[in-house]
Amino acid sequence: MAYENEKLPEEKVFKDPVHRYIHVRDRVIWDVINTREFQRLRRIRQLGTTYLVFHGAEHSRFQHSLGVYEIVRRIIDDGFSGRAEWNEEQRLVTLCAALLHDLGHGPFSHAFEKVFNLDHEHFTQEILLGQTEVHEVLSRVSPDFPQKVADVINKTYPDKLVVSLISSQIDADRMDYLQRDAYYTGVSYGHFDMERILRVMRPTEEQVVIKESGMHAVEDYIMSRYQMYWQVYFHPVSRSAEVILMKILHRARYLHETGYAFTQEPTHFISFFEKEFKLKQYIALDESVLLTYFQLWMEEEDPILSDLCDRFVNRRLFQYAEFDPASQYMKIGELMKLFQQAGLDPEYYLVTDSSSDLPYDFYRPGEENERVPIYLQMKNGDLRELSRMSDVVDAISGKRRTDHKIYYPEDILMDGSNLLHEEILEVLRG
Amino acid sequence: MAYENEKLPEEKVFKDPVHRYIHVRDRVIWDVINTREFQRLRRIRQLGTTYLVFHGAEHSRFQHSLGVYEIVRRIIDDGFSGRAEWNEEQRLVTLCAALLHDLGHGPFSHAFEKVFNLDHEHFTQEILLGQTEVHEVLSRVSPDFPQKVADVINKTYPDKLVVSLISSQIDADRMDYLQRDAYYTGVSYGHFDMERILRVMRPTEEQVVIKESGMHAVEDYIMSRYQMYWQVYFHPVSRSAEVILMKILHRARYLHETGYAFTQEPTHFISFFEKEFKLKQYIALDESVLLTYFQLWMEEEDPILSDLCDRFVNRRLFQYAEFDPASQYMKIGELMKLFQQAGLDPEYYLVTDSSSDLPYDFYRPGEENERVPIYLQMKNGDLRELSRMSDVVDAISGKRRTDHKIYYPEDILMDGSNLLHEEILEVLRG
Amino acid sequence: MAYENEKLPEEKVFKDPVHRYIHVRDRVIWDVINTREFQRLRRIRQLGTTYLVFHGAEHSRFQHSLGVYEIVRRIIDDGFSGRAEWNEEQRLVTLCAALLHDLGHGPFSHAFEKVFNLDHEHFTQEILLGQTEVHEVLSRVSPDFPQKVADVINKTYPDKLVVSLISSQIDADRMDYLQRDAYYTGVSYGHFDMERILRVMRPTEEQVVIKESGMHAVEDYIMSRYQMYWQVYFHPVSRSAEVILMKILHRARYLHETGYAFTQEPTHFISFFEKEFKLKQYIALDESVLLTYFQLWMEEEDPILSDLCDRFVNRRLFQYAEFDPASQYMKIGELMKLFQQAGLDPEYYLVTDSSSDLPYDFYRPGEENERVPIYLQMKNGDLRELSRMSDVVDAISGKRRTDHKIYYPEDILMDGSNLLHEEILEVLRG
Amino acid sequence: MAYENEKLPEEKVFKDPVHRYIHVRDRVIWDVINTREFQRLRRIRQLGTTYLVFHGAEHSRFQHSLGVYEIVRRIIDDGFSGRAEWNEEQRLVTLCAALLHDLGHGPFSHAFEKVFNLDHEHFTQEILLGQTEVHEVLSRVSPDFPQKVADVINKTYPDKLVVSLISSQIDADRMDYLQRDAYYTGVSYGHFDMERILRVMRPTEEQVVIKESGMHAVEDYIMSRYQMYWQVYFHPVSRSAEVILMKILHRARYLHETGYAFTQEPTHFISFFEKEFKLKQYIALDESVLLTYFQLWMEEEDPILSDLCDRFVNRRLFQYAEFDPASQYMKIGELMKLFQQAGLDPEYYLVTDSSSDLPYDFYRPGEENERVPIYLQMKNGDLRELSRMSDVVDAISGKRRTDHKIYYPEDILMDGSNLLHEEILEVLRG
Repeated sequence: MAYENEKLPEEKVFKDPVHRYIHVRDRVIWDVINTREFQRLRRIRQLGTTYLVFHGAEHSRFQHSLGVYEIVRRIIDDGFSGRAEWNEEQRLVTLCAALLHDLGHGPFSHAFEKVFNLDHEHFTQEILLGQTEVHEVLSRVSPDFPQKVADVINKTYPDKLVVSLISSQIDADRMDYLQRDAYYTGVSYGHFDMERILRVMRPTEEQVVIKESGMHAVEDYIMSRYQMYWQVYFHPVSRSAEVILMKILHRARYLHETGYAFTQEPTHFISFFEKEFKLKQYIALDESVLLTYFQLWMEEEDPILSDLCDRFVNRRLFQYAEFDPASQYMKIGELMKLFQQAGLDPEYYLVTDSSSDLPYDFYRPGEENERVPIYLQMKNGDLRELSRMSDVVDAISGKRRTDHKIYYPEDILMDGSNLLHEEILEVLRG
Repeated sequence: MAYENEKLPEEKVFKDPVHRYIHVRDRVIWDVINTREFQRLRRIRQLGTTYLVFHGAEHSRFQHSLGVYEIVRRIIDDGFSGRAEWNEEQRLVTLCAALLHDLGHGPFSHAFEKVFNLDHEHFTQEILLGQTEVHEVLSRVSPDFPQKVADVINKTYPDKLVVSLISSQIDADRMDYLQRDAYYTGVSYGHFDMERILRVMRPTEEQVVIKESGMHAVEDYIMSRYQMYWQVYFHPVSRSAEVILMKILHRARYLHETGYAFTQEPTHFISFFEKEFKLKQYIALDESVLLTYFQLWMEEEDPILSDLCDRFVNRRLFQYAEFDPASQYMKIGELMKLFQQAGLDPEYYLVTDSSSDLPYDFYRPGEENERVPIYLQMKNGDLRELSRMSDVVDAISGKRRTDHKIYYPEDILMDGSNLLHEEILEVLRG
Repeated sequence: MAYENEKLPEEKVFKDPVHRYIHVRDRVIWDVINTREFQRLRRIRQLGTTYLVFHGAEHSRFQHSLGVYEIVRRIIDDGFSGRAEWNEEQRLVTLCAALLHDLGHGPFSHAFEKVFNLDHEHFTQEILLGQTEVHEVLSRVSPDFPQKVADVINKTYPDKLVVSLISSQIDADRMDYLQRDAYYTGVSYGHFDMERILRVMRPTEEQVVIKESGMHAVEDYIMSRYQMYWQVYFHPVSRSAEVILMKILHRARYLHETGYAFTQEPTHFISFFEKEFKLKQYIALDESVLLTYFQLWMEEEDPILSDLCDRFVNRRLFQYAEFDPASQYMKIGELMKLFQQAGLDPEYYLVTDSSSDLPYDFYRPGEENERVPIYLQMKNGDLRELSRMSDVVDAISGKRRTDHKIYYPEDILMDGSNLLHEEILEVLRG
Repeated sequence: MAYENEKLPEEKVFKDPVHRYIHVRDRVIWDVINTREFQRLRRIRQLGTTYLVFHGAEHSRFQHSLGVYEIVRRIIDDGFSGRAEWNEEQRLVTLCAALLHDLGHGPFSHAFEKVFNLDHEHFTQEILLGQTEVHEVLSRVSPDFPQKVADVINKTYPDKLVVSLISSQIDADRMDYLQRDAYYTGVSYGHFDMERILRVMRPTEEQVVIKESGMHAVEDYIMSRYQMYWQVYFHPVSRSAEVILMKILHRARYLHETGYAFTQEPTHFISFFEKEFKLKQYIALDESVLLTYFQLWMEEEDPILSDLCDRFVNRRLFQYAEFDPASQYMKIGELMKLFQQAGLDPEYYLVTDSSSDLPYDFYRPGEENERVPIYLQMKNGDLRELSRMSDVVDAISGKRRTDHKIYYPEDILMDGSNLLHEEILEVLRG
């Protein structure tokens, strides 16, 4: 029997708190899950530093990936009404893309990528196409199968409908993470009636659309996303930890570049500092490794590196204040001067950070980052873009909301009887 | 104001999926949570290797410790009816003991302790009484306060009622972990009506007892515990991972002792191999550190160490078979011989492991590990031991159930055309 | 001891699926619950005819009333930070108003009141102040106590803060019913973080306001309300049942007025038909009584009464079609003519019905039905009206959404080979 | 197309809080649901008088019946592995039997049947086979189809496997009601992993058996049942209401027999009093009708009937005391004498009642009410009876637990200064 048609002798299930059970019948899926590159996702948290605010959020990208797979499997196997049967390869391409869409994420993804100017989507491609176990398994289906999976994830796959299941404004990725992140953080947002959404999804040539009667379920989903962003994903305390993490990596690179003699050599990082790393080195990095270095670096002589590592490991985070760049840019200059006078390097101790979300956008053809909007399918078959039909979605549609904050070490500033410190706090809070 | 009476200017809350919110008003509690020794519990999983079976079980001892604290806080602050007011110090001793009862746990606690012959309860004491941040905070209450907290955890505190809240057959520790582990694994066991149990708890001089009308709620709790043990805690796949973990540590020690030249020096472990470690070295170990070493050791030349590490990190676990030591002890000898013939060191590749649980026990005075039983309080005030009143509890009471398994690398044995391998498999499965 | 200070010897609890437990310590509350007027609420469904669409929605106003009481009890007893202690009478007035705010509801409230031009708020007052058991219990507190409770419900009580707990755009009534109705219907809307909202409520002289940091929790609550209205409360099938119910009552009154000889005399209704009923007669009506009559009337000779009753009892509801009064008023005239030609009395078989909701409104002083808006309290103490701060709320604020439908007996129209029937269906659907 | 193969143009779903959605594709099922006899189940509560203790338990037999159908549908449509395809008729027979198994229940079933010596299973048969809408629909499949459905419910259907899905010690009926009753009462018992049980069910010729690995899930189910019986189904307050209900019916019959002139004629009951009723009269009775009569009878002159009705309607229930028939039979005699002296008719005011449950029983061939035990299927295919494998189940297996209580009007006895009353209370409590 062709590998792509091989079924397990007995269905395997994973117990999952969000979907109850995750079902695997296909040999290919089972083999992919057991590759080292996929297992590595167990060592990358789904929400990065968020566990330092919401202590429940310790869940990994491993389980999220299984969850996305399960949603897509249900969509395919329960069948879109109206769509002809999927052929076996198309089905497998879609399932594999669902399972593997996050494969290239590094440790504390966002911060790490920003510092080293990397892109996890790029690495997902590399892992799929390079000399890896995942590649080996996928190639067994057919030589061009890994490329097809990569194309779906890269949104260049010719069947747009398949692409839209994995990445669109209402895709399996988002549906899983909203529910999963809500479950693990314990917040009451993030719930919506996924079962109903699956029932009202309809296939078109170009993408999945939604039966008109399902509009309110989709509104509810959009609102969940909106709430999760502001309540969880952009929580300022989690961003504070992320800011510190980036500053650690900056400092370590700077020290390396300036010839500092590390007690604990940054072996795993050198190739990144020098921008000459190999795929294998990227894969070797996970959050365990970073946390281990940070603990070791707490003992380094460099006071900035050591302090920042202590802050991250022992959760002594920066405090934050609101900041409006339009009207307060002068303030930053003033603060920088004061920090320098007080002996605090503003490069590391006075950090501005902005978060920004666009919970939903209509179609802006030609624009960078154009997004495929969500369409409702009327009874007569016509399609209408969601924000035209829903006041609530219209209200947040296309509106980028941005939040600016300054982060700083309040503990240091509060500690002493230093008059400069008092002045700094006044400026920060004023 | 005395430190022990100090309140935070505004109550702090932690969002918690199990108890909804965890409430902190006391300055002491807040300061303890922010110590590095307590924050370290974020890097120790509550259920060790269980996440390799139940992928949701990635939660840490940090959140469990907060949960135990919250349960005890509710018991104290909502008040036992019938108990005079707690004085402030007694209340704080109890809350701190709840929060800190797991402080001494090491990475993958059970396995690590077994290999190095350590005891986490011993380390909890050491951290409370040694030169640590936790000790410094507790001492601010009064010089003998750390010792009092240690006494409660050590069960030598004179007020037996307080001890029974933290460790007895129906304590806050068990009530939190059953619910929490059920939540994160996603299993349907582990649920019971804690709110009702808290309502029917009554204080006596010696311990907490249960109002007779609450018997069924307690039965349900005991059954939850019974089910969680067999469905989750003793799951053979999780034990397989634990077996491999122990064998890794055994092998590394052996290599160290026999002068093997590690490419990656086991710096963090040497003092443990040589049985001369300091508290600080113990604290420095967490699961990130172990996982980092295991990844590095995958590259070691020693084939056994390298293979075992690969198994653990990439989840290529041992298969298992039932095994009855009473009737099958000969089989082990035979298998050892066959393994040696096949070039598989039975020390590392043929491992027997037993799990055993006593879900509830009545009072057996004088016996080692005697347990305080659960008493029901009749309407007339008399106490009756639970298993006398409940058929269900009686059925499992005092009955130790043990489960023996042999673990072995099925993948190797299945792989080749080696006739010996086939013979081994036949013996194993026969 | 004064009756108002009397406590029960042991706290009573009601098991409640929404709030887990409902706690009663006050003798007055216990006695009120045990009056016949309060127990009567067990025989009035919370959601009227909704159980004919969402079969789970069979819950009564009895449990909702307990739920509102419990929320208010928690607000009072856990205390607003910043508010001086409530005196005992004020506390009891508020609790009793919470418990009794729905006391005057009749069977299938909305429809019944509309047909007989009644007002449940009026009856709540009457029951509180008339010769009833509730009145007797409340009077034991003090002679003017029943009037005070009535004033709170009637929004004329001088303490506006107390009034706002029971009736405002974010009151205990709404918080209970959204959660409760979601629980019993099984829909995924209706969830919001009530515990957080309770934590961010702050008292002012005029009303409860919300700490700024709680804005997103309130947004989520408003969205829940918005969704519940359109998904549950205004569900067209439930409205279809309500339309039929009204037509039954209309027909029975008409028959009574025109001297029809009922086989089963409408004893309970006659005083309502003749607009000369007493309070006792109103109280005697509940949903059991109505359902009993409707079953009996299925056997009446009048074909319209008999048919409509059969429709309601056996759930043979009217079908519905969209209808735009602005552009389609001519259509109604045409349909009426066709119905008459087909021998279907349009008075009973062609019914238009409109639903309309205003999920949130800002302050429009002086307007009829002005609503007190929700205010956010900024860090500096200033108040800002919610819709100015929240795009999402602004989007739906003050916008009345209305939905018009025509209801008709599709079963009759589909049945025969009557050409007129076909024509009617064409017009209806066209 | 044959009626039995007809599918709805679009799948219909019912939103259900327990199973999320209930799915209907078959025209036959849809038509059965819309019959008046099935809709009547909306007016019969699933748990009779239990809503007077657990206010959430207002749910009807209608939704339970849909739930049982849904479980069986999932079993059939997701397919037993190992069973050949079901033919369409067999499938429909099973689904219809699931849906209709409770069709014959009367109002407050247990009490009503006991007083009039009726049997709801008998009526289920009558409704299936008599001149009813249900019969008409089922007959459309084939003339002998109604009889087949009746045979399944009656356990005489030749395919024992089908029978065991609907009625055995682990059937769809029990699986639905345990979960549903837990949901609506809000208790924490009643949860078990039904999805897992469905996965480990295996068909044999004789019955459904359980794969050995599912033993713990089944234990958990048995324990849920055990807990629900004692915590919910046999709650003494609910039994108190049932006792009063029976005494109302007894009294009304007695009055009718002795020629009492009712102000409100017991029209609906006369045929039952005289044991000459027709099916139609049975069907016309529902809980609305009973409650309407009880309210009317509160105004009757007979003081006993009027008092008992007031007690039921306004929830002024009897108090209860423990009672051991073996040792305390003398006490009853003494109490009867005292009641008579005090002018309280012991026939109505001194009631003994016993509840009894057998949570699980092994096979006792030939005994009356023999029950088919639950079998585990070992890896080698052998069957083992559950209680042999599970200590917990063994502990409660075959052990009938009985609870005896005396019910009496404590309010009357506490009221006055009557010395006899005091004496009675002393005896009752003594």
